[in-house]
Amino acid sequence: MVGDSSDTIWGVMDVYPRTDFPDIRKKAIIRSHAGSLIIIPREGGSLVRFYIELPHGVAAKDVKVANLHEAARQIFQPYRMEFAETSWWSAYAIGQRLADRFTQSSRVFLTGDACHTHSPKAGQGMNVSLQDGYNIGWKLGSVLSGQTHPSIINTYVTERYKVAAGLIAFDRSFSRLFKTGKDAPTPEHVSEQFIMAGRYMAGLTARYDDSAIIDSKGSAENLAKNVTVGMRLPSVQVVRFCDAKSMQLAKALPADGRWRLVVFPGEIADPATMVKLQELAHFLGGKQGLVPKFTRSGSDVDSFIEAIVVLKGNRLSIEQDQIPEYFWPVTGKWRMRDLHKVYVDDEDYKNIHGRAYQHLGVDPSKGALIIVRPDQYIAATYPLSDVRSVENFFAHFGATSLQSSSERVSERL
Amino acid sequence: MVGDSSDTIWGVMDVYPRTDFPDIRKKAIIRSHAGSLIIIPREGGSLVRFYIELPHGVAAKDVKVANLHEAARQIFQPYRMEFAETSWWSAYAIGQRLADRFTQSSRVFLTGDACHTHSPKAGQGMNVSLQDGYNIGWKLGSVLSGQTHPSIINTYVTERYKVAAGLIAFDRSFSRLFKTGKDAPTPEHVSEQFIMAGRYMAGLTARYDDSAIIDSKGSAENLAKNVTVGMRLPSVQVVRFCDAKSMQLAKALPADGRWRLVVFPGEIADPATMVKLQELAHFLGGKQGLVPKFTRSGSDVDSFIEAIVVLKGNRLSIEQDQIPEYFWPVTGKWRMRDLHKVYVDDEDYKNIHGRAYQHLGVDPSKGALIIVRPDQYIAATYPLSDVRSVENFFAHFGATSLQSSSERVSERL
Repeated sequence: MVGDSSDTIWGVMDVYPRTDFPDIRKKAIIRSHAGSLIIIPREGGSLVRFYIELPHGVAAKDVKVANLHEAARQIFQPYRMEFAETSWWSAYAIGQRLADRFTQSSRVFLTGDACHTHSPKAGQGMNVSLQDGYNIGWKLGSVLSGQTHPSIINTYVTERYKVAAGLIAFDRSFSRLFKTGKDAPTPEHVSEQFIMAGRYMAGLTARYDDSAIIDSKGSAENLAKNVTVGMRLPSVQVVRFCDAKSMQLAKALPADGRWRLVVFPGEIADPATMVKLQELAHFLGGKQGLVPKFTRSGSDVDSFIEAIVVLKGNRLSIEQDQIPEYFWPVTGKWRMRDLHKVYVDDEDYKNIHGRAYQHLGVDPSKGALIIVRPDQYIAATYPLSDVRSVENFFAHFGATSLQSSSERVSERL
Repeated sequence: MVGDSSDTIWGVMDVYPRTDFPDIRKKAIIRSHAGSLIIIPREGGSLVRFYIELPHGVAAKDVKVANLHEAARQIFQPYRMEFAETSWWSAYAIGQRLADRFTQSSRVFLTGDACHTHSPKAGQGMNVSLQDGYNIGWKLGSVLSGQTHPSIINTYVTERYKVAAGLIAFDRSFSRLFKTGKDAPTPEHVSEQFIMAGRYMAGLTARYDDSAIIDSKGSAENLAKNVTVGMRLPSVQVVRFCDAKSMQLAKALPADGRWRLVVFPGEIADPATMVKLQELAHFLGGKQGLVPKFTRSGSDVDSFIEAIVVLKGNRLSIEQDQIPEYFWPVTGKWRMRDLHKVYVDDEDYKNIHGRAYQHLGVDPSKGALIIVRPDQYIAATYPLSDVRSVENFFAHFGATSLQSSSERVSERL
């Protein structure tokens, strides 16, 4: 691991405080002559976590819980602070370290704390580590089931190394927010950075570079102006056509290992829209179509690539049978038609409109075709008519139905 | 049980249908020459429940699953209808019956199907039965813990008998909606009644009559114009003062056996408001106050009656220590101050305003004091200054702290 450890020691404890400090249930930062302290209210209404800066020269291993109690009492003065119970505590030196590589021969991979360590304050230890596992998980699954070429596993390293390096940089800059003394930032700067860090902490700022499974260079990104290839698909409210249910588009893209072609064909009222949808259904789902080509024979047509349609306009002006059957295929154990793939950008029954096209920046007269990975990252945005690009995209890593499953795995491993 | 059984036989089945009927995922009623059928889409996206009217002269015990399949196929014509699987089915004669009494000597009580039966279509069998148990549950609990007089148990009978009788009437009128032939209602009438029945089915229309624990006659109902004594408290969005969390007021009234005094003192900016709140704190929570009087000695001050404050105005213009300490008492295992009893009718951090005073019809210049039962039903609405009425209300059934717990139970049982 490459990195450094600062000489700043912090203590952390979960306590049941008896206090007259008024903001004990608010996320807050206290900077006093006695040091810095961060208040993180915990679940349940009574428990509170304190992060406490300890005096210079203290070694983490020498810290006792009584030192943390005393430091907190000093920092909270003139407010009263007693501890009814301390349910957990620790002390640590802030340090940021990154493994120099995340894999050995593409056979062994490191994830989580094994390849990046940092201070615990932004709650990113668990979150980023879970995302590491999520990233390599679906890739391993798709290779082992013979759906994709083993080379996609290497994108785990490039994608998550970039995120880990970003995390280390974030942690350094975030830690500086709590500095006291002459280097201390202004309260306004701290507040501003804290709010900006919210999107980062929520895991919505990662952007993966181009690879076999990200094609920003070949994308027509202007077709979905507010969608960034390589980042997570922003969610928007849509109405499910079959049952008029108002829901988030993200709910239509569960993490079940499937790739998704999210089709924005345009306005229902525009006669050209249904023509485009018919053509697309033919190129994607027809007997010689590209989706069957990348689907294992005997598997459901939506088992590797699922097409999701988001129309725009008055959902009461169309009928189910005007939508090409490829978008409501017969699937599953009961061989029933799956009606849950068609959505409309329209008012719901409470008169709330998601304005999905507008939020994603899709011009209804042009439409768009967005490829979404099994982990909800956007792989590419292509013109509606550009089925060739979709085919080329999947040809880079997808196994075709002409190969048997065992051939696909054995020849490539 | 008193009531009748009609000669109309219905079948019910949960099926995985293979069909081209377009509205299979929508709640729908089909009326055809072959009979009536109700579609209730089930959870999971594939399973559907059908209620099917069977031909006159059929006996429920003679019905086979094949009869239900055939009846459904006839009704769905000209649409195709096949059944991939039938996971459950039954047949029943519609009948409504009500027990002539719900108790024997106030020692044995009937709840649920033991005292009211009806058709299953509106999903009220389980819902009303759960509410029966909920109603008697908190009353038994408060009597057995010595907090209230045993006589309140009898309100179970009056309150739930009224609801059961209303359910039978609702079921008769609701069943008529599915009639075919010359008595059939118009589609518009069916649709209208279905929507109106929504509030009923959600359990929000029950209204309990006056008793020891409902005082509509003594209430000043004009102080909270949109609140009906004897009915459930409508929920509104408020902002919790201690942590600025936007939440529903109903969440502040969990079903933990406690009575609640929900205090609406008025505008924060009005100097009279804090004076009123101080006076109220004195009369309620002072050493000679009414709340300690009805609280077992040694128990927390909020263990039987909890006061909840809903102020109106700019929450940033007040500080915690301007609120009388009675409203943030020291309680619980850790003897910490409970800051979760004060709420503000104000914009939240997303600039959404709950307009709680307006929705409940409370005039901020007058305020109001609403007594809410442990089951969220409104017991009374009194003027802010009328602590005497609050005391009289609780004196009718509450045990005072002058009695020991065993005395209270033994002398009254």
